[in-house]
Amino acid sequence: MEPGIDHTLRGGWTLGEHALPPHALRWLRGRIGLAEHPTPVAPDSVLTVPEPELSTVGRAALESVVGAEHVLLDRNSRLGRSGGMSYVDLLRHRGCGELAVPDAVVLPGDPDEVVAVLKACGEHDIGVIPFGGGTSVVGGVTALRGGKHAVIVLDLARLNRLVSIDPLSRLVVLQAGVRATDAERMLAAHGFTLGHFPQSFERATIGGFAATRSAGQASAGYGRFEDMVDGVRLATPVGELNLGVAPATAAGPDLKQLVIGSEGAFGVITEVTLRMRPVATHTRYEGYFLDGWDAATAAVRDLAQHRVLADVTRLSDTEETEVQLSLTGGVKAGAVKAYLRARRIADPCLLILGWEAGSAGELAVRRAGTLRALRQHKAVRLGKPIGETWRHGRFAGPRQRDSLLNVGVCVETLETATHWSQLSTLRTAVRGALQRSLGRAVVMCHVSHAYETGASLYFTVLAARADEDPIGQWQRAKRAASEAIAPLGTITHHHAVGTDHAPYLAGEVGSLGIDVMTSVKRALDPTGVLNPGKLLPAADRG
Amino acid sequence: MEPGIDHTLRGGWTLGEHALPPHALRWLRGRIGLAEHPTPVAPDSVLTVPEPELSTVGRAALESVVGAEHVLLDRNSRLGRSGGMSYVDLLRHRGCGELAVPDAVVLPGDPDEVVAVLKACGEHDIGVIPFGGGTSVVGGVTALRGGKHAVIVLDLARLNRLVSIDPLSRLVVLQAGVRATDAERMLAAHGFTLGHFPQSFERATIGGFAATRSAGQASAGYGRFEDMVDGVRLATPVGELNLGVAPATAAGPDLKQLVIGSEGAFGVITEVTLRMRPVATHTRYEGYFLDGWDAATAAVRDLAQHRVLADVTRLSDTEETEVQLSLTGGVKAGAVKAYLRARRIADPCLLILGWEAGSAGELAVRRAGTLRALRQHKAVRLGKPIGETWRHGRFAGPRQRDSLLNVGVCVETLETATHWSQLSTLRTAVRGALQRSLGRAVVMCHVSHAYETGASLYFTVLAARADEDPIGQWQRAKRAASEAIAPLGTITHHHAVGTDHAPYLAGEVGSLGIDVMTSVKRALDPTGVLNPGKLLPAADRG
Repeated sequence: MEPGIDHTLRGGWTLGEHALPPHALRWLRGRIGLAEHPTPVAPDSVLTVPEPELSTVGRAALESVVGAEHVLLDRNSRLGRSGGMSYVDLLRHRGCGELAVPDAVVLPGDPDEVVAVLKACGEHDIGVIPFGGGTSVVGGVTALRGGKHAVIVLDLARLNRLVSIDPLSRLVVLQAGVRATDAERMLAAHGFTLGHFPQSFERATIGGFAATRSAGQASAGYGRFEDMVDGVRLATPVGELNLGVAPATAAGPDLKQLVIGSEGAFGVITEVTLRMRPVATHTRYEGYFLDGWDAATAAVRDLAQHRVLADVTRLSDTEETEVQLSLTGGVKAGAVKAYLRARRIADPCLLILGWEAGSAGELAVRRAGTLRALRQHKAVRLGKPIGETWRHGRFAGPRQRDSLLNVGVCVETLETATHWSQLSTLRTAVRGALQRSLGRAVVMCHVSHAYETGASLYFTVLAARADEDPIGQWQRAKRAASEAIAPLGTITHHHAVGTDHAPYLAGEVGSLGIDVMTSVKRALDPTGVLNPGKLLPAADRG
Repeated sequence: MEPGIDHTLRGGWTLGEHALPPHALRWLRGRIGLAEHPTPVAPDSVLTVPEPELSTVGRAALESVVGAEHVLLDRNSRLGRSGGMSYVDLLRHRGCGELAVPDAVVLPGDPDEVVAVLKACGEHDIGVIPFGGGTSVVGGVTALRGGKHAVIVLDLARLNRLVSIDPLSRLVVLQAGVRATDAERMLAAHGFTLGHFPQSFERATIGGFAATRSAGQASAGYGRFEDMVDGVRLATPVGELNLGVAPATAAGPDLKQLVIGSEGAFGVITEVTLRMRPVATHTRYEGYFLDGWDAATAAVRDLAQHRVLADVTRLSDTEETEVQLSLTGGVKAGAVKAYLRARRIADPCLLILGWEAGSAGELAVRRAGTLRALRQHKAVRLGKPIGETWRHGRFAGPRQRDSLLNVGVCVETLETATHWSQLSTLRTAVRGALQRSLGRAVVMCHVSHAYETGASLYFTVLAARADEDPIGQWQRAKRAASEAIAPLGTITHHHAVGTDHAPYLAGEVGSLGIDVMTSVKRALDPTGVLNPGKLLPAADRG
């Protein structure tokens, strides 16, 4: 098997069992009231996988492009690319509701083959789901047909090369199927890093980051993914778009920013030119307590507006802080409570700050700048252990979710962003909407991306899974949250649109914004084969 | 007369006479060989201004939207908005070649009136030239007809209000016709600045900055204009596009970046939401010499890649350095030569660094960071006077150009950007192309915008104006420069596309990139009335 192809999804981030510790289970029973009979991962055999519907002529056309060995029709290959990583996706893989299974998985070997596959799909009425790490949590890779006779997953796993590197300009060209972990390994050999570390880091790909406007945990230091993209190569059914010749340009509208975030609806990203930074040789992560959400966000705002944010800046609200302290076990709860009492902190909000630098001197200068601005906000220093605990577990969220699913917890995240003057109003609105919908739920929130003009809000929800219609339980809660978000902030700060946020997109960009995107889609995808049902569902019919 | 409406152009940036000092004239005669009989500004009466062709019904429709008093048909109003500020524009206003004079000047009073004017133009076959400060140097506001029966200049001078301000989020909403100078005055009342100071600062408008992807002299500190834009309101013949609800979003492609740089071809920008910064209370400008272009650009690259650029970072090549020292008279030439000899600097490249900070401490910390990175590059300190001289004259370029035109100099600028690894190759190619085309010319170059992955190159050309066909003389040189640029860098870093760079746009974004923009234009401007001949000349016919 070729390298990197076997990253199939089956019901969770990992299939290993990660049992929750007894104290966490006790805490969950007390807070959300867990069901008596938790539902474990369903056996593979209970899942319905229909026979592939791909026409003989369509299959022959695809095989003539990529070779028969790269058109997979077996049950496991198709099942392993049936949807992404949302809570609802995982439930479906556990036997709730119905899976959308692609008719075939096609693995092109280079950018030209991607163009040829798309042309063949256009000619043979086949929908195409571009697929990288499969980590979408918004239905971005669900194998919807969009009225086509068949739908394939176009898996970019074979586009896994570093194409070229220019150390002087600090630029690298990576193929879209390169996984983030492999990208970091390839770049480290030259002394560089991208600095892009979203929670999906262990599985996600370069193309997926670009297609979804990903933002990593160190976005304050390294920028959002779109800030790193210097060029992009997009395969479409009508040819190739190749953008990016300079670090900045005034040569008309920035078409690169039209490709970034296009979620496979305009084409398939095959190569991305990215800005690199030297690998950090000196790092420091530490924790602080601030008292109360408004004081805490004022502190982060001050850091952002003074442009002295740490590379990682992550502020939890009191709920999330309490849960972290209760569940991680990294700090003893009793000791912490005494500590807080002694410092008269009523509503502790945990702030994690992390710096990544090229020398001890640079780290010291930058940290001093951050702490100078923090001083007036009465932050209480917690030291390095809690910072290191966060850092150690920074990619653990998806694994923890598997464990929670196993014991019957409804667990999901959602996110938004808005300007500073709206931030508290937005948080209150979303919390209220989720709690009204889910009843006895824990709703936690953190700021993980701060800007001069505003910040993101990231919510994590824990509730007891409903015995009846657990998918409907979450979809109602998600709808309530989205309707609370729409008038106050963006419908998504870094999870992208996919199927789940598509109903709210017109509210954000207006009907004329939808018309603009539809006109672009028609120019690049005239028969509407690309990623049906995502971003612009109404434009699918070509 | 309403405020801000009388900013008409007539043959130069200023109509006052700014005589060149005798030593400058002597230097020019020696270096480029000036014509014996310089051509001064032509009298107004030699210019041909055709009668307006606007149909009666078209005029009535426009008057019904904005009121008869805001539809101007007089000779002076039309002549004053006939083209922009390129060398060729100025020559035309001095009696060389033919002016494109609009049939009327229309002054809408608010964003809704702009939409209504555009609808009326669509219905009555009238081309529309959106017009702010009229400072385009690439033909961006030339009153071309594009096959329409008439063409109007849509002057945004009455859209001159601050709509709202959110100090907590550091955001301001400005109408598009607000001039940069007025914007700074309005914001200063609240303690804020945009920090956007291009050479066109004294005349240009907020809408123009957005429409052309402007970059200011302090772009290293404050960002390019597109980096400041949080939201934008675009009037089109089919309605309004209103974008920007959060500091960052993953809600599909960034349509804002499609509006920014659209140069009036997709619509008319009526409002811009902008990030503000506190007014700098502590500033420091100073000069350094570096020896030779390659060593000097390596120093600037190091500052950019260490992210310790001064807010203003401007590096002149040896030619520009010599001309600056010869012409400004700010430093005595003989003393400088002795100084350079003593320090063994063979090819002096002048580096201007300027910091703008909120406190003495901040300034000291940031300056120390810059100087630390500069240390290994053997920069020779020149102190503050030369920095202050540059700062004092930072907007004088256009005025100096007027003076040079008066004495018969062919004087123009052009610019590009590329990645660091290509920068010297690109400079050599453009210099060579200009010198081959113009013969005995002075070609100067500077870097005024540096990025981690590359930098801009800004060329200033001085040559003796040809007696025969001076417009053709420059157009041939410009074509040679553009053909040298195209394979190595962007066709424009911050001057935009207009008419002049339009032939090279397909080379930069590909024919599919043109198709994408054309599809957007057809969606927003179905009858093709918007800014004919600019950006996408082939898409004019609707």
